[in-house]
Amino acid sequence: INSKLPEVSTTIFTVMSKMANEYDAINLSQGFPNFDVHPKLIDLVTQGMKKGYNQYAPMRGLMSLREIIAEKTNSLYGSKYHPDTEVTVTSGATQAIFTIIAAFIHPGDEVIIFKPAYDSYEPSIKLFGGTIVPVQLSAPDFKVDWQDFAQKITNKTKMVIINTPHNPSGTMLSKEDMLTLEKLLKNTNIVVLSDEVYEHIIFDGQEHQSVAKFPGLAERSFITASFGKTFHTTGWKMGYCLAPKELMTEFRKVHQFNVFCSNHPMQYALAEYLKTAEHYLSLPGFYQQKRDLFLSLIKDSRFTFKPAAGTYFQLLNYTKITDERDVAFAERLTKEHKIASIPVSVFNLNQQDDKVLRFCFAKTDDTLEQAAEILCGI
Amino acid sequence: INSKLPEVSTTIFTVMSKMANEYDAINLSQGFPNFDVHPKLIDLVTQGMKKGYNQYAPMRGLMSLREIIAEKTNSLYGSKYHPDTEVTVTSGATQAIFTIIAAFIHPGDEVIIFKPAYDSYEPSIKLFGGTIVPVQLSAPDFKVDWQDFAQKITNKTKMVIINTPHNPSGTMLSKEDMLTLEKLLKNTNIVVLSDEVYEHIIFDGQEHQSVAKFPGLAERSFITASFGKTFHTTGWKMGYCLAPKELMTEFRKVHQFNVFCSNHPMQYALAEYLKTAEHYLSLPGFYQQKRDLFLSLIKDSRFTFKPAAGTYFQLLNYTKITDERDVAFAERLTKEHKIASIPVSVFNLNQQDDKVLRFCFAKTDDTLEQAAEILCGI
Ligand SMILES: CSCCC(=O)C(=O)O
Ligand SMILES: CSCCC(=O)C(=O)O
Repeated sequence: INSKLPEVSTTIFTVMSKMANEYDAINLSQGFPNFDVHPKLIDLVTQGMKKGYNQYAPMRGLMSLREIIAEKTNSLYGSKYHPDTEVTVTSGATQAIFTIIAAFIHPGDEVIIFKPAYDSYEPSIKLFGGTIVPVQLSAPDFKVDWQDFAQKITNKTKMVIINTPHNPSGTMLSKEDMLTLEKLLKNTNIVVLSDEVYEHIIFDGQEHQSVAKFPGLAERSFITASFGKTFHTTGWKMGYCLAPKELMTEFRKVHQFNVFCSNHPMQYALAEYLKTAEHYLSLPGFYQQKRDLFLSLIKDSRFTFKPAAGTYFQLLNYTKITDERDVAFAERLTKEHKIASIPVSVFNLNQQDDKVLRFCFAKTDDTLEQAAEILCGI
Repeated sequence: INSKLPEVSTTIFTVMSKMANEYDAINLSQGFPNFDVHPKLIDLVTQGMKKGYNQYAPMRGLMSLREIIAEKTNSLYGSKYHPDTEVTVTSGATQAIFTIIAAFIHPGDEVIIFKPAYDSYEPSIKLFGGTIVPVQLSAPDFKVDWQDFAQKITNKTKMVIINTPHNPSGTMLSKEDMLTLEKLLKNTNIVVLSDEVYEHIIFDGQEHQSVAKFPGLAERSFITASFGKTFHTTGWKMGYCLAPKELMTEFRKVHQFNVFCSNHPMQYALAEYLKTAEHYLSLPGFYQQKRDLFLSLIKDSRFTFKPAAGTYFQLLNYTKITDERDVAFAERLTKEHKIASIPVSVFNLNQQDDKVLRFCFAKTDDTLEQAAEILCGI
């Protein structure tokens, strides 16, 4: 077999979740909540199935769901997405990301990504013959050096992938960052893939800077979004993407032959559930309580940190504890101390090791307390 | 925009279903049932959600589901698939097909396909730079000329896609066909993608010839299967694929970055539902009654036919009615006569027009009676 992805092995999320299970460790590695979905949302799915939403959905998505997605986005970000031509429902944000890359990357195209990066970007780009042009950011601030970025733009640059709020660092791009990016891409044909799956998980009263707010970016951008992250349903594999019509047309050409359409009864349920904005507007407060609880409980531990600005991930620096590589330390924490995290170096260029581990705090207070107790004893 | 699929437009299934809706026509075009899912299966999904199967499933699929899939397949076809390494649950068979092509086709690779063919194969192959080598079959028998096929094998042939029972023709490959294919591929490295989504929809006491039955094929094959087709849930987007470990390893490298995993509560439900073989073993009888009803009702019409041997599609020849091209006639039937079908030429090489339309008979008896009444009046 002539492997197309010879260097790819199993994603770190599967590796760490499996290790957590095997060693009966508290699993703060893979990003998913360990508390329940709102019962109303479950009831709505049941209702959808009983009402007969069990056959193919429209390829683009259920119209009522696309309408409410467009409305929500346009009212939050002042954009003008049209539900029919500029919104497509997907089987999760990862599927949207894969499909965007599939639809736009020709062999030899360059794609600029910021490292550390979610681990699906690179193999997807490689699979289509694209070349990855990494811009490495570093702990603890993960600030983008836009001059460095500007130098990496060539006439082969086809796409830039940004991600705000940023996984794994928990940082956010500022308005100035977005304006700078907008200026740098002006007069180019570069497509932006803006991974905004944590758009509703932001702290300390900050504002999410969606590309949708910046006309010079919006006109060249895909936004990918996740109902899994927003409604505590990562296992339902529901998400969507937004883009101007011309870009969306190309997306759909591929989407229709990848998954064809997404889960119909769940689309029905999400359309109903989204009628109340409260479910997502309450998320910043909900997760801020968790972040604050977790950080207050470990403030006297030997881990050091900068509080996450967004996402449900907190990086913890462990230089006061050991000089082990992060991969080795994460493994040891899981096996010996029964707490699983994600070593950030696996997302970095050349495995750059900033001595930080990523902990997911989308967990019950109880779990966070148990986790903090372990961390304080290390 | 430099389109990667410049010649691709919206899939015929979306086009015809949309036209059916607009003109309030009986929709026998896109392949999905218009009757309900078994209430037990709906209850099981609700149970799955209430039991908390709402976060990421394992990337390969829920172990209990993979186990029962392997058992079922091995007992039906005498194969030896291992649930852990040789079964992966997917978001529908189409997603499995796309991902198989993604994982194996390098630019310049040749893929032999039999036309008429399900319309996702070709654009997916093109997207990865593959070359399509078509073998055209013709109405009414759609018999494969294996000598013709043998001549198309070159040292660039990477994959052969077969589909039995065959959509859109309703024919099936025989044991002799399979043995011939097995012999022709011996001593090659060619991978077979065997699309068997209609494996349980077969008539007149025939036997489905799965590649799983032929060791020389099974060792080089992917089988793709669909819970949507088998359990009347096309809108749930659940399916799976089977392959020997070495092939499955490559599949999963791509799968994990395409959709990552499939719907968790629905996997739970399907694993429970599959504990009773009755649900799929009753399908031949269930659909044979529909095929027979439909054909008996139109036997005096001006349409002519050879009864489908499998699938829930019946081809009808209309040469006694008009010499219009099938696309034009299908459109006219939808708009003027209020009955939608699929013109088969869109699946053929060079739009070869055999003057046949495809009608889906996965419909209530009532719908079939209304449809037959229309067809008899044409
Ligand atoms: C698809 S598994 C990864 C989940 C996630 O978003 C993360 O842990 O970063
Ligand atoms: C994915 S829509 C196509 C449904 C189908 O299998 C068919 O109509 O052939």
